[in-house]
Amino acid sequence: MSGVSGSGLGEVPLGGFGGFAAPPRAPGGFPVVGIIGGGQLARMCQPPAINLSLTLSVLAEAPDASAALVVPSAPVSGHDDLQRVRAFAAACDVVTFDHEHVPAHVLAALEADGVPLHPRPEALVYAQDKLAMRRRLGEIGVACPRWAQVRTAGELAEFAAGGTPSWPVIVKTTRGGYDGKGVRVVDAADSLDGLADWFALVEDPQGPFRDGLLAEEFVPFDRELAVLVARSPSGQAAAWPVVETEQRDGVCARVIAPAPGLSAGDCAQLTEIGLRIAGALGVTGVLAVEMFAVTAPGSGTTYLVNELAMRPHNSGHWSIDGSVTSQFEQHLRAVLDLPLGDPRPRAPWSVMVNVFGADHDELYSAYRHVMAADPGLKIHLYGKGVRSGRKIGHVTACGSDVDALRERTAHAADYLAGVIDE
Amino acid sequence: MSGVSGSGLGEVPLGGFGGFAAPPRAPGGFPVVGIIGGGQLARMCQPPAINLSLTLSVLAEAPDASAALVVPSAPVSGHDDLQRVRAFAAACDVVTFDHEHVPAHVLAALEADGVPLHPRPEALVYAQDKLAMRRRLGEIGVACPRWAQVRTAGELAEFAAGGTPSWPVIVKTTRGGYDGKGVRVVDAADSLDGLADWFALVEDPQGPFRDGLLAEEFVPFDRELAVLVARSPSGQAAAWPVVETEQRDGVCARVIAPAPGLSAGDCAQLTEIGLRIAGALGVTGVLAVEMFAVTAPGSGTTYLVNELAMRPHNSGHWSIDGSVTSQFEQHLRAVLDLPLGDPRPRAPWSVMVNVFGADHDELYSAYRHVMAADPGLKIHLYGKGVRSGRKIGHVTACGSDVDALRERTAHAADYLAGVIDE
Repeated sequence: MSGVSGSGLGEVPLGGFGGFAAPPRAPGGFPVVGIIGGGQLARMCQPPAINLSLTLSVLAEAPDASAALVVPSAPVSGHDDLQRVRAFAAACDVVTFDHEHVPAHVLAALEADGVPLHPRPEALVYAQDKLAMRRRLGEIGVACPRWAQVRTAGELAEFAAGGTPSWPVIVKTTRGGYDGKGVRVVDAADSLDGLADWFALVEDPQGPFRDGLLAEEFVPFDRELAVLVARSPSGQAAAWPVVETEQRDGVCARVIAPAPGLSAGDCAQLTEIGLRIAGALGVTGVLAVEMFAVTAPGSGTTYLVNELAMRPHNSGHWSIDGSVTSQFEQHLRAVLDLPLGDPRPRAPWSVMVNVFGADHDELYSAYRHVMAADPGLKIHLYGKGVRSGRKIGHVTACGSDVDALRERTAHAADYLAGVIDE
Repeated sequence: MSGVSGSGLGEVPLGGFGGFAAPPRAPGGFPVVGIIGGGQLARMCQPPAINLSLTLSVLAEAPDASAALVVPSAPVSGHDDLQRVRAFAAACDVVTFDHEHVPAHVLAALEADGVPLHPRPEALVYAQDKLAMRRRLGEIGVACPRWAQVRTAGELAEFAAGGTPSWPVIVKTTRGGYDGKGVRVVDAADSLDGLADWFALVEDPQGPFRDGLLAEEFVPFDRELAVLVARSPSGQAAAWPVVETEQRDGVCARVIAPAPGLSAGDCAQLTEIGLRIAGALGVTGVLAVEMFAVTAPGSGTTYLVNELAMRPHNSGHWSIDGSVTSQFEQHLRAVLDLPLGDPRPRAPWSVMVNVFGADHDELYSAYRHVMAADPGLKIHLYGKGVRSGRKIGHVTACGSDVDALRERTAHAADYLAGVIDE
């Protein structure tokens, strides 16, 4: 096979593939891409994989995981079951990730087996460990909120005292957070008791909080933006337009592409930051950089990096319908070191709104209504069980009138979530 | 489940599902669409099915059929194995088709079982039987080439004698033809011996040629066009722009959407013909109407219907990338009686070119080259074994300069087919 190395295993662990059948590959010399984790990000890789004749194999959390419903090769295993992950990877030409949670010792074992991993563990650590991320971004000159590593309430109070104003302060676990989980806001010095459980966990030298917590200044931002780029092992890179993201309770609610009112100069500056981070950290695959835009009277707008993700990201879901090459297609191309596709938008505006579950589990009736109300809407549902407040899909509309797109997508998402009934 | 009836079987045939596991469906009340036949048309239904949370189940010719590589539920059976087809259908909410070859007695048995079929057998017959199609189109006033049913060389010679000029004449088998198969051109009266084998088969009262052959005048067309429409059981209909198709050796080679130089009046007239046929024949799902455009000096352009297909069709592959709602998404919506999506184009022009196999079976190197040469090209490969001249995929480019799109798609298809190497 040209350009794609085999998994390079000297010995196949556990005798054969440890019970995992190798997925049948498409004829013609096309590779198998393994994805650890069977969530909606893995699921949304399957449509472009089908078009491109790439075979996916997904290591799924359960037989009814989002991606397992649509990918024929979806063996079930935890992502921390070393022997099963190794057996899974042995049948793939390259392995990538649906999430950041694969432990370092598992990644190290796969590397020792010769499995091509993208992103590579030495890049992925900056998406897994927020302290490592903050340190590294500082080294390469990327502006971030003021931060400190804290292990005690006293250290946190000391960090706060250095700020203007002192409070509120944001406290994050260094690992394992997503969608607002692992983040707390401390409003004042007398609220520190609310962190007692976290500081207790810091004392466990084997536990996930052993490195302490990340304290950050509260940034009074005007809005949040995200830069999405892709980078291949050869170093080719491509960037989508900078988008505006709106969060609700720490979870992405709406994305507008491109970010309204962003000057060409600021757009170029932010894209450069995204590409600089991807290059400096050696990212392979898609990288999302979430940023705060802060306007201080008299000093213009500055941009501070909030979070990184090294995988397709909610801020890029609009690209499925709104861009020539979606983030899912681009991620597959990048991890295979294939030439990257054109990331340019296909319409002046795209608006993506997440769909959250209603308090009843039947969704098909609302879906029919939404289709009838808006024939141009693109509906994406993830095959997940409907639970109140759970992220179960998204809708996108593309066109030239951004206000109309906002209204159409909001109506559809609210109807599907049972928030409105007309 | 709202709006989708179950398969309605009073008794499940063969005890359970005859060895076919019912596909796991997405939670929320979403239906299972069964497709008989596992070719590329079934395969290209899977990306929109994933987006829409619809579950496909494909009755595949082989475990490595094009669609079986990408759809988790793909039991293997011939489409004429009555008991296995019935068992397959029993696990689906609606059944549709990848091709026209399911025999009438199988369709009748499924209807007797209460399986919702779309298109319904009484519509599908006009795509299966070219004589029935010609008779019915005449009844509803749709212009066709001059034709006759012929059973002997003498009847064919008599038909030819009625034409101006008499020769050449096109002779078609009434059933089972596709991609140029089942079509012969007879150049002159002294070439009739070339049909001796077909006329011999006509004599077999049980054979597939028992209804005789379809003779048609040779139409000296300027170009070929195709009208693609979708119609739902409720009668909702939608039409894509009329396209120009170019055939090579009877096989679709290139499609340009919309058809260049077609006047708005002619476009409306042709769309009306497509919608009239869909309504009069009771089509449910996608209908493709292939037409000849013939310009006679002094009398303008007339349009004659050549062929019908009641399924997604090669003339509509451009719609995956070029239209808000692709023919594959629309077919799924239509057969489920869901509201239809917007069929409007997303760019001024789309050009689709089919990819045929080269004489070597490795394709991945050429694919990398094509990706590098044209980052905006959309590549679609069907997971089929590469054989010289076999249709293995297509490429589409969308934009505002139709000549540039022609050039880009031709280069990519020629490179993938091994016709050029730079």
